[in-house]
Amino acid sequence: MTTLGMVGLGRMGGNMTRRLRDRGIEVVAYDRDPGLAEVADLAALVDALPSPRLVWLMLPAGAPTDDTIDQLVDHLDDGDTIVDGGNANWRTTVARAERLREHGLELVDAGVSGGVWGYDEGYALMVGGTDAAVARLQPVFDALRPEEGGFSHAGPVGAGHYAKMIHNGIEYGMMQAFAEGIELLEAGGPGDVDVTEVVRGWQHGSVVRSWLLDLLVRALEDEESFAAIRGWAEDSGEGRWTVEEAIATATPAPVITAALYARFASRQDDPLAMRVIAALRQQFGGHAVRS
Amino acid sequence: MTTLGMVGLGRMGGNMTRRLRDRGIEVVAYDRDPGLAEVADLAALVDALPSPRLVWLMLPAGAPTDDTIDQLVDHLDDGDTIVDGGNANWRTTVARAERLREHGLELVDAGVSGGVWGYDEGYALMVGGTDAAVARLQPVFDALRPEEGGFSHAGPVGAGHYAKMIHNGIEYGMMQAFAEGIELLEAGGPGDVDVTEVVRGWQHGSVVRSWLLDLLVRALEDEESFAAIRGWAEDSGEGRWTVEEAIATATPAPVITAALYARFASRQDDPLAMRVIAALRQQFGGHAVRS
Amino acid sequence: MTTLGMVGLGRMGGNMTRRLRDRGIEVVAYDRDPGLAEVADLAALVDALPSPRLVWLMLPAGAPTDDTIDQLVDHLDDGDTIVDGGNANWRTTVARAERLREHGLELVDAGVSGGVWGYDEGYALMVGGTDAAVARLQPVFDALRPEEGGFSHAGPVGAGHYAKMIHNGIEYGMMQAFAEGIELLEAGGPGDVDVTEVVRGWQHGSVVRSWLLDLLVRALEDEESFAAIRGWAEDSGEGRWTVEEAIATATPAPVITAALYARFASRQDDPLAMRVIAALRQQFGGHAVRS
Amino acid sequence: MTTLGMVGLGRMGGNMTRRLRDRGIEVVAYDRDPGLAEVADLAALVDALPSPRLVWLMLPAGAPTDDTIDQLVDHLDDGDTIVDGGNANWRTTVARAERLREHGLELVDAGVSGGVWGYDEGYALMVGGTDAAVARLQPVFDALRPEEGGFSHAGPVGAGHYAKMIHNGIEYGMMQAFAEGIELLEAGGPGDVDVTEVVRGWQHGSVVRSWLLDLLVRALEDEESFAAIRGWAEDSGEGRWTVEEAIATATPAPVITAALYARFASRQDDPLAMRVIAALRQQFGGHAVRS
Repeated sequence: MTTLGMVGLGRMGGNMTRRLRDRGIEVVAYDRDPGLAEVADLAALVDALPSPRLVWLMLPAGAPTDDTIDQLVDHLDDGDTIVDGGNANWRTTVARAERLREHGLELVDAGVSGGVWGYDEGYALMVGGTDAAVARLQPVFDALRPEEGGFSHAGPVGAGHYAKMIHNGIEYGMMQAFAEGIELLEAGGPGDVDVTEVVRGWQHGSVVRSWLLDLLVRALEDEESFAAIRGWAEDSGEGRWTVEEAIATATPAPVITAALYARFASRQDDPLAMRVIAALRQQFGGHAVRS
Repeated sequence: MTTLGMVGLGRMGGNMTRRLRDRGIEVVAYDRDPGLAEVADLAALVDALPSPRLVWLMLPAGAPTDDTIDQLVDHLDDGDTIVDGGNANWRTTVARAERLREHGLELVDAGVSGGVWGYDEGYALMVGGTDAAVARLQPVFDALRPEEGGFSHAGPVGAGHYAKMIHNGIEYGMMQAFAEGIELLEAGGPGDVDVTEVVRGWQHGSVVRSWLLDLLVRALEDEESFAAIRGWAEDSGEGRWTVEEAIATATPAPVITAALYARFASRQDDPLAMRVIAALRQQFGGHAVRS
Repeated sequence: MTTLGMVGLGRMGGNMTRRLRDRGIEVVAYDRDPGLAEVADLAALVDALPSPRLVWLMLPAGAPTDDTIDQLVDHLDDGDTIVDGGNANWRTTVARAERLREHGLELVDAGVSGGVWGYDEGYALMVGGTDAAVARLQPVFDALRPEEGGFSHAGPVGAGHYAKMIHNGIEYGMMQAFAEGIELLEAGGPGDVDVTEVVRGWQHGSVVRSWLLDLLVRALEDEESFAAIRGWAEDSGEGRWTVEEAIATATPAPVITAALYARFASRQDDPLAMRVIAALRQQFGGHAVRS
Repeated sequence: MTTLGMVGLGRMGGNMTRRLRDRGIEVVAYDRDPGLAEVADLAALVDALPSPRLVWLMLPAGAPTDDTIDQLVDHLDDGDTIVDGGNANWRTTVARAERLREHGLELVDAGVSGGVWGYDEGYALMVGGTDAAVARLQPVFDALRPEEGGFSHAGPVGAGHYAKMIHNGIEYGMMQAFAEGIELLEAGGPGDVDVTEVVRGWQHGSVVRSWLLDLLVRALEDEESFAAIRGWAEDSGEGRWTVEEAIATATPAPVITAALYARFASRQDDPLAMRVIAALRQQFGGHAVRS
């Protein structure tokens, strides 16, 4: 039987722990929050795991992950493996792997997609690491992924986070494509177009059928809830990294970038750029401005 | 039993006729090509149909559809209905409907999605027209659509083509999002990322799972065939119309437009715009140009 | 001496009339507003002009220009010339020219740039028409244009409006480039960047020095006035036409289009597209929305 | 009299040295290339300068600048000032300034615009640093800049390079706006539009008049040379940094980014993204591909 240490029992880590246990993986679970933790500390977590140990981190990007890795380095032994299931930048992951290698530890990066639906439907996993380390973890991956598919060994360490980053970039583009389409459905055409009806009709047989479309129908059908939502959209970092990689590799990515910029713009109030446009129009054409 | 006249037996019309007949709709079929036509001419087609008649046009946009409508007007009677299943611009459709109304005829527009897969899997239909006309055609729509869903009465005449146009605009954006993602997967990351493996892993459990993704996996898995494909992409008109509607309604559509422009650019050889950029760089900076 | 009939004495037409008279062109001036008109009606204007007559229209696009042309057709004679100095779509201009040709009249289209500064500095003119008609009008053009340059015979009728349309498309792109730059200057960098100081420094010796930059400095230096301007920007039609031509000719125009869409977005309040993005993020990730 | 050490006598540094000497600044000049250097080495350059010393670096970004700074640290004394006139990323500049401060040295960053025209017309300078250091250098700046304007003290150290970066970002957008306009002028309109004639006409009185437009006219008028230029455009780093700052500050920059991506695309041959689009179209629609 496989035993896994899970560090981080937030929304994602908590659900993943439940899914793993449902499917026969023994999990030793720790969280900084004593109300969630099932062992006293990271030392106790390490002690409770059989060798070679497998420790899965499901933590916010940045300092929380680095701090935990720092502590684990003191407790783990040669041949143990850490999995980073969070959303790290792949360059950070490569650097962490090098550092852990100096301590005789392996790092495997696992991009995890599926959100709040993953507990029921399984998570799509994009994994980077050595063949040996990935093989050791395969029972864990198999418990997390859907019945069918949903797993890739993308390449060496870092490739999992790289693939997850791009997955999210694509997701940004797809969401924005739907968003523009919905706005256009509402904005034009002959008389009243029944937007929800149209979108529902796309769920079967159309070229755009997709899980995001299914979610879109759910969102539109809950009219009261949808009416209360404002056009204000966060971005979670991976969209930005995708554009940064586009720049670093001189690869044009106009759609993914436009989707990211639409989110930036949604959070602006009275942007300076457009005040400049209005001011210039007034300067050369005497055009009216709004104040 | 419902009887339908089908005009246009190309790839789409031919497959739809087969699917209709498989599902118990009687079809009288005509094509300009005598080798395909099952009746002598449009007059014979009209004669063979019970009143009120239902005639479905599955013809190339523009003149072929107009010519056929012109001829049908002479043969059809008050209360007959023409369905335009082709890819007309919705404004053209509205104008045609007005003209037909003067002759006592109804026009129903049906946007049809599903491509070469529709015969097996059913077509997604977006329909515009009066409730009465749509009701008369419902058995036909039900035979064409998938077992579940795949049908919407989008609104008054024109709304079907409007919805189909936007469907295709969204499709452009989704395809370009995947395309950029694949190029980025190949362009960067740590060592060799196994692109096909990654994309296959997205088919289950991921946020981007979709029919287009399934087709993408098919395309990538057929390595020999994919290797032979050049980066040259047509556009079929509806992407352009979507952008025109964005402009007409002052609705920003950056993603759909970027996807369209990427196709335009793919067909250009040594574009003048970039020759101007190179020339300007040489002018002010003495930067080298390529000749 | 050259005599010109001027129809339309708004901001542009009025200033142009003054500039023409300052430079020795005799102008017979008419406006629908009796308070501005110097002759009773179009018939009187035509009567006051020597043959072959030259009538310059400086009217809002669309119906006002068509109505005036309709009336002029009744009064003008073979060999007379109408100049349309307004912002017509070049396709409309070509159609109007054909119609006028049937009445023995010539149409010349003159795109006019320069805005409120044109009276003092001269107007840049882009002219379409036959060599003969353009030659007859040359004294008028020479009086309107700056001391040096500022005139082009762009091609046959329609080419003037075509060139003006593209001029404005370029203008959109340049303005947006400056606008984005100003916003970035303000948004980042080390400590306080003195935006106005920086921009003023670009007026001489830099690659971006330009008349729009000079206007930008004027706008920023008038701090009180600038502070009152909201980020709400109209578009005047020619930007839209430019994008429509990009689509019609399958020419990618990402910058001009992005500039147009930025204006559209500046006029939206809580756009539906971004409400869809927020709703989708909530659906799959449980991400918070703003209401 | 002011004496300046100049390190780096390439196209920019060489011309600047000439301009400085023409205007009465004494320059001690060094280059790694012994054929260009006027002193034996950096130690000799430092020895030849009066205290407090002013050393201007005009070197390629990255290692050459770092190496030179490393060596200068050993030779310079408390209170000496280094000016970096190259195109460093402003974040690098801020880090270098901190390091130099620990050695009692000041760093001033000077973004320099003007290219090959600067020797004759003067360079636009965007400067970051303390008031005291900038004041010491003012005679040098005044000799380099045009007769009028062309200088800004943008803010603290790093602000010069930040402003220069954004200047170049704007330049990218402006160039692309012109490039798209030229391509559209050529692609459409009624019959032959005389592109060069039109563009020349914009040089006076138009809204788009600018130095870049003047250069564009020069480029188009040299028909033979222009005909030999291919549509292949480099980017020099600062466009990329501008987009990275847009991302870092969550500021939408659609025009500057589109201009950068157009350059990326100009350097691609048969991009994978468009091969994916073609493959997808073939998959769902049976559309022909090009091989």
